[in-house]
Amino acid sequence: MDGAEFRRHGHALVEWIAQYLESSDRYPVLSRVAPGELTRALPDHAPEAPEPFDAVLGDIEHLIVPALTHWNHPGFFGYFAISASPPGVLAEFLSAALNQQAMLWRTSPAATELEAVTLGWLRDLVGLPASFDGVIYDTASISTLHALAAARELAVPGVREQGLAGRPGVTGLRVYCSDQAHSSVDKAVGLLGLGLEGLCRVSTDDRFRLSMPALREAVARDRAAGLTPMAVVATLGTTSTTSVDPVAEAAAFCAAERLWLHVDAAYAGVAAMLPDQRDTFAGWEHADSVVINPHKWLFVPFDLSAFYTRRMDVLQRAFSLVPEYLRTPDTGGTPRNLMDTGVQLGRRFRALKLWMVLRTYGAQGIRALLEGHMALARTFAAWVDEDARFERLAPVPFSVVCFRATPAGVAAADLDAFNQRLLDSVNATGDVFLSHTRLHGVLTLRLAVGHLRTTDAHVRRAWELLCEHSDALAAR
Amino acid sequence: MDGAEFRRHGHALVEWIAQYLESSDRYPVLSRVAPGELTRALPDHAPEAPEPFDAVLGDIEHLIVPALTHWNHPGFFGYFAISASPPGVLAEFLSAALNQQAMLWRTSPAATELEAVTLGWLRDLVGLPASFDGVIYDTASISTLHALAAARELAVPGVREQGLAGRPGVTGLRVYCSDQAHSSVDKAVGLLGLGLEGLCRVSTDDRFRLSMPALREAVARDRAAGLTPMAVVATLGTTSTTSVDPVAEAAAFCAAERLWLHVDAAYAGVAAMLPDQRDTFAGWEHADSVVINPHKWLFVPFDLSAFYTRRMDVLQRAFSLVPEYLRTPDTGGTPRNLMDTGVQLGRRFRALKLWMVLRTYGAQGIRALLEGHMALARTFAAWVDEDARFERLAPVPFSVVCFRATPAGVAAADLDAFNQRLLDSVNATGDVFLSHTRLHGVLTLRLAVGHLRTTDAHVRRAWELLCEHSDALAAR
Repeated sequence: MDGAEFRRHGHALVEWIAQYLESSDRYPVLSRVAPGELTRALPDHAPEAPEPFDAVLGDIEHLIVPALTHWNHPGFFGYFAISASPPGVLAEFLSAALNQQAMLWRTSPAATELEAVTLGWLRDLVGLPASFDGVIYDTASISTLHALAAARELAVPGVREQGLAGRPGVTGLRVYCSDQAHSSVDKAVGLLGLGLEGLCRVSTDDRFRLSMPALREAVARDRAAGLTPMAVVATLGTTSTTSVDPVAEAAAFCAAERLWLHVDAAYAGVAAMLPDQRDTFAGWEHADSVVINPHKWLFVPFDLSAFYTRRMDVLQRAFSLVPEYLRTPDTGGTPRNLMDTGVQLGRRFRALKLWMVLRTYGAQGIRALLEGHMALARTFAAWVDEDARFERLAPVPFSVVCFRATPAGVAAADLDAFNQRLLDSVNATGDVFLSHTRLHGVLTLRLAVGHLRTTDAHVRRAWELLCEHSDALAAR
Repeated sequence: MDGAEFRRHGHALVEWIAQYLESSDRYPVLSRVAPGELTRALPDHAPEAPEPFDAVLGDIEHLIVPALTHWNHPGFFGYFAISASPPGVLAEFLSAALNQQAMLWRTSPAATELEAVTLGWLRDLVGLPASFDGVIYDTASISTLHALAAARELAVPGVREQGLAGRPGVTGLRVYCSDQAHSSVDKAVGLLGLGLEGLCRVSTDDRFRLSMPALREAVARDRAAGLTPMAVVATLGTTSTTSVDPVAEAAAFCAAERLWLHVDAAYAGVAAMLPDQRDTFAGWEHADSVVINPHKWLFVPFDLSAFYTRRMDVLQRAFSLVPEYLRTPDTGGTPRNLMDTGVQLGRRFRALKLWMVLRTYGAQGIRALLEGHMALARTFAAWVDEDARFERLAPVPFSVVCFRATPAGVAAADLDAFNQRLLDSVNATGDVFLSHTRLHGVLTLRLAVGHLRTTDAHVRRAWELLCEHSDALAAR
């Protein structure tokens, strides 16, 4: 593809994407393809000869687009709603062309330093102190993995060299989180060789918050049994209900017990930018590490996870390994080489999109968007609360509402099946997409507000569809 | 940023990138900024008010671009040379806008199925059998981590649940690789809790290939000492010299010894597309897992690592965890959910760029590019061989040449320092960038050919600069 062709296709793509960003709502949110349909429509083998790019773009329109679930659609209310904002998309375009590989400072001074600068900006915006040093990973799964790897490095002297197996005195390592914590904690514990049995899921209170008495009891019981408590993962904004663990108490407890405290604020962390939310986050500044995902609720295209720790020295001790082919002349005052702060040697230029988004919207613009989303969630929650056909199943600290339909005439035992049918029916309209969870054993619908272009009208549409479809299903 | 603004800035960016892709050689390859220079030029805090996007683009031109080391420059000969090809860049632009999160099939049927299809295409192109199932990760570090996690899952019954510590009989787990294997093996071994002491780096022969006698002896010695051999990592195209481990012999040995064989073909794997290279790869089809990085030598923008395994069942056993909020209705025949095949829950739509690159160049086009790079490397190697002022330090199986200057009048003991000065001097010109390694203790320069637009003229320029600067430095 020569320069003229790149220009022609590039300009056409700008037009296509501009239209997509403005009107992705002309597509059904949830893809309607059947499993295997796309696979069957594609050739079994790569072409031998080059194909015209127009043919590729044609296939994107006719084969790929129908197989998309549109995360970048204002009617997307599933999981956590995310946004590829226009400046974020342009940043990724540029980042791909520059193709930076920021393993060493010298292999990309721009990516290395812009990462530190933008992470400093974000840290200040959310009110974490300067004692937190940051690094960008791809996902919160990887951030939490690094947090627990650092915790293990502190808890088990020599673990990097000697490992975990067959060492006298190294046994029964324990990590604690609530029964609402994300599955990435399990994955990290498993990968680190601690064993899923080493993860203690502590009960939560009636607002789905980590129970401090239960945590204290679990740690005391484990110590009495000769086990080795190592770390606690507290969550500010859990995945099911966005509940808020008592992080200040957890931090005091962890300090007294010498446990690593990792705070998973992947979704909700950015809300700490709002002055009236500061109380919610009080105490997280005493954590050992915090993860915030700008690709969740900060309008940055996927992927970008911001990991902060007060113990970057421990993280580096766990991960720094410099083979000869990566040694660089000591230039003096060289900033950190990013490869020393994690398992991945290669890193792309992710900071660019965070920087471009923060500048384009400004802190004021971001705060207004976050407040708007939280207001929309409260509005929806009020509709649920005021309507006898529905009930709310959890508090709404941020922008997610947990609820279910409870229509007259449907027996309590049938409510799970009814709500599953309702969910499928509403999602099949294509106008909105909601996902579910299970709370105290009850099938729960979730409306997660978070897309840049989601307005009052989209939330109202979701509510209308839920009411209509619930009435219709109940009348059958 | 509204649609009109997106169009305006998007079209301008297309023009900027088109020019960059055609003429990135107007920039010095290696950035000339001093450490901290970019940081000092940027504000300490995010702006409160939104900033005009033109200001952001202005800063990119004036602050970011000078701080780039241009990996996408035809004079980039360091590490492994990579390319963001025009169709790959357009694919990433589109991928950012679509913002797919392919954790579940239903959250992106397109990303899930296109990943399987394109990995099938690549597998067939490189001649691996259909018994290999694939998954896309970000980097080879993560691919190798997953390979060794799967190996651990097989070697240590119940490791996922019970971990490694304090278990009778679970001790002395051993992983083997050559002294030329990549540092990602160390990082994976450390992270998995095996301990760096559990990694046995076996010696290599005079061509930097894993010594099979040494491997056999190490495993026998370890078994005799009551240790537990678990896995071997063989490399096809090592990082320093691109040497080729005897993978057929290693596979036979691993089968007999019941060891997991992981083949790191991150750089060189794509060369298996060339019919005359098939012998080089003979036997890799008996490996348990293989990693090939299309972001290295397949013209796909960073990041995309293709991981293949004949034991996807073991990988899924190690990683599959399905919390309630991620359960989906059983639709029957649903393809794999990608979140079940690794530590990262979220995955972006990486397959798109691989698919678009394979179609735009076609298998023929890719083969011609690879052959061209290998021919350039052989040409350069011949110049080295024919010139008494230089010596070659390793064979050239692919597209990397290891060599050093040995000018008359420089004592043997001073050659390392001389070559370091030569490297710095040549890199300071800005026309080319080479990196180094150390072979048998000797500082070694590396010329790695791999960029899409690297021609005869760029390689010739590198040679001229090396000759000129070597002569000048030797004459001092």
